[in-house]
Amino acid sequence: MSSLSLLSRLSSSASPSTRRLLSSSASRPLVDLRSDTVTRPCADMYSAMLSAPVGDDVFGEDPTVAKLESHLASLFGKEAGLFFPTGTQSNLCGLMAHCNSRSSEIILGSNSHLCLYEQGGLSTLGSIHSRQLPEDPETAQVPIDAFVAGVRGDDPHYPRTAVAAIENTHNVLGGKVLPASYISSLGAALAAQDVPLHIDGARIFNACVKLNVTPAELCAGAASVSICLSKGLGSPVGSVLVGSKHVVGLARRARKAAGGGMRQAGVIAAAGLYAVENNVERLADDHQRAEFLCGKLREAGYGIEVAPTTNLCYFTLPDGCALDSGAFADRCKERGVLVGLMYGETFRFATHKDVDDEGLELAAKVFADVLR
Amino acid sequence: MSSLSLLSRLSSSASPSTRRLLSSSASRPLVDLRSDTVTRPCADMYSAMLSAPVGDDVFGEDPTVAKLESHLASLFGKEAGLFFPTGTQSNLCGLMAHCNSRSSEIILGSNSHLCLYEQGGLSTLGSIHSRQLPEDPETAQVPIDAFVAGVRGDDPHYPRTAVAAIENTHNVLGGKVLPASYISSLGAALAAQDVPLHIDGARIFNACVKLNVTPAELCAGAASVSICLSKGLGSPVGSVLVGSKHVVGLARRARKAAGGGMRQAGVIAAAGLYAVENNVERLADDHQRAEFLCGKLREAGYGIEVAPTTNLCYFTLPDGCALDSGAFADRCKERGVLVGLMYGETFRFATHKDVDDEGLELAAKVFADVLR
Amino acid sequence: MSSLSLLSRLSSSASPSTRRLLSSSASRPLVDLRSDTVTRPCADMYSAMLSAPVGDDVFGEDPTVAKLESHLASLFGKEAGLFFPTGTQSNLCGLMAHCNSRSSEIILGSNSHLCLYEQGGLSTLGSIHSRQLPEDPETAQVPIDAFVAGVRGDDPHYPRTAVAAIENTHNVLGGKVLPASYISSLGAALAAQDVPLHIDGARIFNACVKLNVTPAELCAGAASVSICLSKGLGSPVGSVLVGSKHVVGLARRARKAAGGGMRQAGVIAAAGLYAVENNVERLADDHQRAEFLCGKLREAGYGIEVAPTTNLCYFTLPDGCALDSGAFADRCKERGVLVGLMYGETFRFATHKDVDDEGLELAAKVFADVLR
Amino acid sequence: MSSLSLLSRLSSSASPSTRRLLSSSASRPLVDLRSDTVTRPCADMYSAMLSAPVGDDVFGEDPTVAKLESHLASLFGKEAGLFFPTGTQSNLCGLMAHCNSRSSEIILGSNSHLCLYEQGGLSTLGSIHSRQLPEDPETAQVPIDAFVAGVRGDDPHYPRTAVAAIENTHNVLGGKVLPASYISSLGAALAAQDVPLHIDGARIFNACVKLNVTPAELCAGAASVSICLSKGLGSPVGSVLVGSKHVVGLARRARKAAGGGMRQAGVIAAAGLYAVENNVERLADDHQRAEFLCGKLREAGYGIEVAPTTNLCYFTLPDGCALDSGAFADRCKERGVLVGLMYGETFRFATHKDVDDEGLELAAKVFADVLR
Repeated sequence: MSSLSLLSRLSSSASPSTRRLLSSSASRPLVDLRSDTVTRPCADMYSAMLSAPVGDDVFGEDPTVAKLESHLASLFGKEAGLFFPTGTQSNLCGLMAHCNSRSSEIILGSNSHLCLYEQGGLSTLGSIHSRQLPEDPETAQVPIDAFVAGVRGDDPHYPRTAVAAIENTHNVLGGKVLPASYISSLGAALAAQDVPLHIDGARIFNACVKLNVTPAELCAGAASVSICLSKGLGSPVGSVLVGSKHVVGLARRARKAAGGGMRQAGVIAAAGLYAVENNVERLADDHQRAEFLCGKLREAGYGIEVAPTTNLCYFTLPDGCALDSGAFADRCKERGVLVGLMYGETFRFATHKDVDDEGLELAAKVFADVLR
Repeated sequence: MSSLSLLSRLSSSASPSTRRLLSSSASRPLVDLRSDTVTRPCADMYSAMLSAPVGDDVFGEDPTVAKLESHLASLFGKEAGLFFPTGTQSNLCGLMAHCNSRSSEIILGSNSHLCLYEQGGLSTLGSIHSRQLPEDPETAQVPIDAFVAGVRGDDPHYPRTAVAAIENTHNVLGGKVLPASYISSLGAALAAQDVPLHIDGARIFNACVKLNVTPAELCAGAASVSICLSKGLGSPVGSVLVGSKHVVGLARRARKAAGGGMRQAGVIAAAGLYAVENNVERLADDHQRAEFLCGKLREAGYGIEVAPTTNLCYFTLPDGCALDSGAFADRCKERGVLVGLMYGETFRFATHKDVDDEGLELAAKVFADVLR
Repeated sequence: MSSLSLLSRLSSSASPSTRRLLSSSASRPLVDLRSDTVTRPCADMYSAMLSAPVGDDVFGEDPTVAKLESHLASLFGKEAGLFFPTGTQSNLCGLMAHCNSRSSEIILGSNSHLCLYEQGGLSTLGSIHSRQLPEDPETAQVPIDAFVAGVRGDDPHYPRTAVAAIENTHNVLGGKVLPASYISSLGAALAAQDVPLHIDGARIFNACVKLNVTPAELCAGAASVSICLSKGLGSPVGSVLVGSKHVVGLARRARKAAGGGMRQAGVIAAAGLYAVENNVERLADDHQRAEFLCGKLREAGYGIEVAPTTNLCYFTLPDGCALDSGAFADRCKERGVLVGLMYGETFRFATHKDVDDEGLELAAKVFADVLR
Repeated sequence: MSSLSLLSRLSSSASPSTRRLLSSSASRPLVDLRSDTVTRPCADMYSAMLSAPVGDDVFGEDPTVAKLESHLASLFGKEAGLFFPTGTQSNLCGLMAHCNSRSSEIILGSNSHLCLYEQGGLSTLGSIHSRQLPEDPETAQVPIDAFVAGVRGDDPHYPRTAVAAIENTHNVLGGKVLPASYISSLGAALAAQDVPLHIDGARIFNACVKLNVTPAELCAGAASVSICLSKGLGSPVGSVLVGSKHVVGLARRARKAAGGGMRQAGVIAAAGLYAVENNVERLADDHQRAEFLCGKLREAGYGIEVAPTTNLCYFTLPDGCALDSGAFADRCKERGVLVGLMYGETFRFATHKDVDDEGLELAAKVFADVLR
């Protein structure tokens, strides 16, 4: 197939779910709600990748990477940006930059992605100890005074508190949003102790859209933010770390050591630029669709309590449900709907740009049928 | 002074507190309740050090070290033992042995000494990530099902759960004792997941004495134990790790790298042997003395609630107290009594072999006077 | 510009150097000989990227990544492959996989890229000690018996020798080629000591083409190979590690921790596939062109001794040369030719697919003019 | 000669050999030349240990430790000192202090003890990369310009050169002495690049005695020195790091994490103080005895070339020797003389305070007999 005909086909007006429906066998999952990481580039994004000027970014000569980095730095009100292949690396290198001295400690939430789902890289690769504080499950916030009380004094019994981190939106606690007021107060309280605040912004644009604030406003209290370009934004790969020139400079070194110093990275940075310029506002649709699907689940009358804040929804099957969790997921999958079985008996669904209203209707119907 | 005359002087019948009282200026602290780590060798312990055969333990040729190691291994019902200069290193190398593979995680209590007071060495030197679970403050136990739920499945998002750890007695939660039933149940539950259990036994003999069980009974559920020879036992330095030959072999390598492979270590191992053979039963006195002093504090009528389990007691000043914490400690010090200001407004006192009844009476009087 | 028109323009028959010459200002460098990392995707490669099916590779669902991995595994005669954003990470994670146990050591050449140019990540992130052995500058080989003598016995004074590494072609020693006979003998000698051999194959296809052997033949003695898809092959980013399923499985974990677990990575894996399928044979042109340019340098009569083996050529200015190294590079740059100033007074030029005969002629002329 | 009759002949009123006679079996080796680490405390050293005042050094309250630290700091002309259980830890923590920032590199000799015999702890625990430069085997020196050329520029491809290290006397290269002129020139050349120089002074007093210079003169060019108190000095355990207050402060933190923060460490620091005050001048005897023994080996006419500088002597058996290395060591051991089989076919003997003239005569005779 020529690239031209491909582009033509991709440009067709049919919705992604529908297109995949039409071209799939009956047994193939059609509506993938496991995660918002499954999104695929659209035709226009491919076009942006194709036409972006590139250079060797290890030599600092890729104009598209530079444009993406400066654009996001500006958008978030920080001095500098740095492109990474993944958010795991953007987080890791950002934290390594803050924890540039030996014997450093991070304070972070017990249920944060950084703490639970990044293989412990901050300790196993970064040699950073952690102080893990429980979040309030209602707000997804660690109380500010708990953060402050967790800062260490100068004593050889203790590591040095070098950074604190929050996650916004908070994945494991259900996509909850931390408001700008919390972040600015927390950032100020920590700054008074000389402790910078890092935000794992895997879904920071979901928070911005939900709160109707700019990234710069939302993240004013933070010294650095790791911004994911995939997930809801739809870029195939890539994250950007923003912060001060000093922190970004140290992160650049950490990135090289960790193997994130790519060459003509503009080909993928272009996708990220497209995503930031085109796919942010539409996150509101994902939030509405998550609410729509939860409504269907509540209406089903099986006692499932779900109330998403943004695009993520964790739920467990009702107590009297005859299905075990594996069976539920399997039955949904047979019917063309994928949900994520996260841990124990807990499911997650995530709405995203590659699931449209049609897909949602199908998912709601399948859930209801399977639970019946 | 010849060693003979020194021994004669040390052998005098006067109590340590009294001796120091007699020979001290009025301003020097006389009753040191900050920690049980301040104990000094007695004359008989010095004598044991003097007469112990020694050799180069790096070559495996120190008979006193070998005797101490095998004695403690036997006492704790484990295959092998290994002598260390400190408990911090004994813990660190024991955990490094269990976590011999890259990308390992430990599960441990949020308030454990390992987690809070060993400078995060398990992460900063050992590259081990931690999963920190809150203890029940009444029992100092992390519920067994929480430990089990904390074990990771096999997924690249996760580190591998390589070891779990408990602390007995639990320092920060007030010297509380974890019973053999908890340890054996926990050990079995973890073993079913192929996760070994390590005990930080900084005060494991206090637990044995309190519970009236043998070390082997108390630690049957554990794969390894770090046993401290200083603290209540009175050795100037030294700890021993006990466990399987395999784990101890790996810990021996870790010890060499961390700089704990000493030469004629028998000179200090001898003190440890003396301590284990002579100073265990007397820990019961420390427990009674802690209760005595707490009774005095309660009787003082200032609303201080204290009920020690073993030899440690944490307390805060009563709400209406006019003194701030620094002032309280200073006033006590002026009167010859040292207490530990641990964190925030919390004090600790620890009873130990170098504080006798006279010292306790003095401390009780000083506390009452200062609080009045 | 539409992607269509871009493709049209890129498909024009003009050579890359010429195209850039035509569209550049006079002061812009036209012939970039600093490194073969500066190559940019051609139109057909873009087309391959555009049309490749993708999925979430963290879930193992990207068919293009899977195809690239299995293709290279097959080509190199290994069980499995794993895609990485960079060769630095492919090397790092491959070595972390071999060095999965604590206290590991690698034996490698003192002048290897791994030792000198990857920020020491194997030690600073991977906690691997190194044993650095000098290569014979004529052959770029560490003698096999030196490798074998460097393997450690089992003693706590020593780390454990967990892996050995070579680099083919050897960058710093002038793009020299290590023949299959050396690699197979070395691999066998090390295997007899239970030490696996890793190849840093940043330019392994240059070696294959030069030696006229298949990758599988050349790398039969190695347990793992890191294969770079950029450099001479022209992919914008990406490397693949090949080895046993066991090693690749461990490397997959290491990749996730290091932040190389990308999502729809097929968009860039497609470029790698295109490169392997289309750009290998043409490496012979680069080798001929390097020889051509060296011939010109020799002919210039300024006493520069250069004899490239493959596409890399290191040289220093002749003793009597009035120019210092910075001035030489600057003068060449003013004339539109970039060379790399590597260390001290040593220059490097690298031929690659984006420098054609025209460019080489220009470079030869500029070198001669500047040296005159 | 039977070992018993030797012991009888060795009997003199206060010699260490005599005391060992009383407790030794007839088959036990009597003249232990494997290493100077096998020395045991003498009666006066024990007496010093017994009478030294002690306190909890974690609280900074051990007067004997403080006295030892300040004494050695003064003797070496540095601001501060810090006591360690071993030289491995003193080196490790000193280097961790210099390499307090992430991504650090040390430059050191390929044959240094730090590089070869400390289990690679600087990398495996300290996360420090190394740049290993070959020493001139005649002088045991890495040329100063090689050190300087090894310093890295500021580039993300490189780690940061944070420290350089030398070893004096140089163990593996035969106890050779590095003169003050080399050290001061090297220190100055490195200081000009902002790189501090660390000395592994495992046998620094042997160097001082050999060169007839004070420690302060010899080490003037160094930022830090690790000084061993065992080996020739005869303390059972212990080393001291000296350097600036800043470096020692960082090393104190590193020591706590590595598990070297001992409690009543004065009991062993007292032995160190005794050693420094009493056992330095006598090292000249060890040097003479090494020369004596080498003379005997040369006289034996078997072609062994040995010329010790200080108290260490490495040798290999002559080419035509019928014995393999294991057999030579075993035959010597049967006759009551222990030598060290270091690596390959290389033996080492070390003279030290627990081997007197009689022992040397026996060793010479045994060597000659066994080689005959």
